[in-house]
Amino acid sequence: MKNKMKIQASISLPTITRLPLYLSYLCTLDNDGNGYISAPQIGKKLHIDNTLITKDFAAIHIKGKRKVGYDIAELILVIKKFLWVDIERKALVVGIGNLGKSLLGHKKFQSQNLNIIAGFDINEEVGKTIEDTKIYHLDRFKEIYKKTPVEIGIITVPEMYAQNIADLMVESGIKAIWNFSSIPITAPKNIIIENLSIDSGLAMILYKLNNNISIVYKNRKL
Amino acid sequence: MKNKMKIQASISLPTITRLPLYLSYLCTLDNDGNGYISAPQIGKKLHIDNTLITKDFAAIHIKGKRKVGYDIAELILVIKKFLWVDIERKALVVGIGNLGKSLLGHKKFQSQNLNIIAGFDINEEVGKTIEDTKIYHLDRFKEIYKKTPVEIGIITVPEMYAQNIADLMVESGIKAIWNFSSIPITAPKNIIIENLSIDSGLAMILYKLNNNISIVYKNRKL
Repeated sequence: MKNKMKIQASISLPTITRLPLYLSYLCTLDNDGNGYISAPQIGKKLHIDNTLITKDFAAIHIKGKRKVGYDIAELILVIKKFLWVDIERKALVVGIGNLGKSLLGHKKFQSQNLNIIAGFDINEEVGKTIEDTKIYHLDRFKEIYKKTPVEIGIITVPEMYAQNIADLMVESGIKAIWNFSSIPITAPKNIIIENLSIDSGLAMILYKLNNNISIVYKNRKL
Repeated sequence: MKNKMKIQASISLPTITRLPLYLSYLCTLDNDGNGYISAPQIGKKLHIDNTLITKDFAAIHIKGKRKVGYDIAELILVIKKFLWVDIERKALVVGIGNLGKSLLGHKKFQSQNLNIIAGFDINEEVGKTIEDTKIYHLDRFKEIYKKTPVEIGIITVPEMYAQNIADLMVESGIKAIWNFSSIPITAPKNIIIENLSIDSGLAMILYKLNNNISIVYKNRKL
């Protein structure tokens, strides 16, 4: 384990964000266990620069064979092992609107060792069980957290409430906040924050449309 | 207009993705019209490196004043003008599950000049009007597109259908695809693709948790 963590710590964050993309794509390939794929082949499909792909794979210690490329089955195995380490992480979701429900139903989380153990809201969803997850009133957040502490808090409330929910999560002892509201939240330095901003994606599309850009980019997170 | 497009074209894509984040944050500040804010102040709140913020603002030609920083009202005005240029963009959404509904209800799109004119599905949502948007059967996609061509196609279907929907959009003449399914889609080079991957965000959080990382990063897209 120690050794693994040392390897991981030397990897750039943009590489981390591209690994799930490679994994999803590789899993769509019809592979009999003996297939190979080259970096240019992957790059062409995913609109990512070849040299970046080679660098990403080297970072997680996967080497290609000359002339044939990378063993597809090996790539899938190594990326999976790297990304979804064998530690189950628990999460709580606050905000059971359409977006919250969509996350509760995201089947892939299971294979990624993420276990959403409860949801919270203040409206008619309270008391229901949605996608096998019990929904509680927000007032019970600290109580439920004490019973089963989690590492990750997921925020899917309207933006005006996002910071208050983040504060509640930090007070309770949560270490990482995954924020889906369209406003950035702030937290103490020791808290991990990941903002998933729909607005950033839209900004990128509008910018490209307005400037007629559709080329492959180097060094960008997808 | 010509001049504006020239300015835009010189800007890096990661800068584009951070601008909505600055904008959201600046709009939360209680500002009487005369307030100033420094790059370090913004950086501390958003966990972004100061020098990166200064660079981003310089790229869109905003200069700070020595010792006081940036005029908040000016920042908001210039970023808005830069991001949401005065061209309305139309979009169609395919997949009216929880995620699709959540996008139909995303109030901010209006201020960002994005107009979702119709939704498509194959199930019980067909025929309904959700958040003022009419939902049609997927079979009618090309017909509706012909009546009102749009630039942007939004995909919120389960991953196994995502590529087929992308192909349909490209065939119809759509220029940009915003893909929310958790699998990357492929399209001809002239098509703009923006993949919003939940898995990338999760990969980042798990990586940081597993390696106990919560510091401020340079040069990363948020």
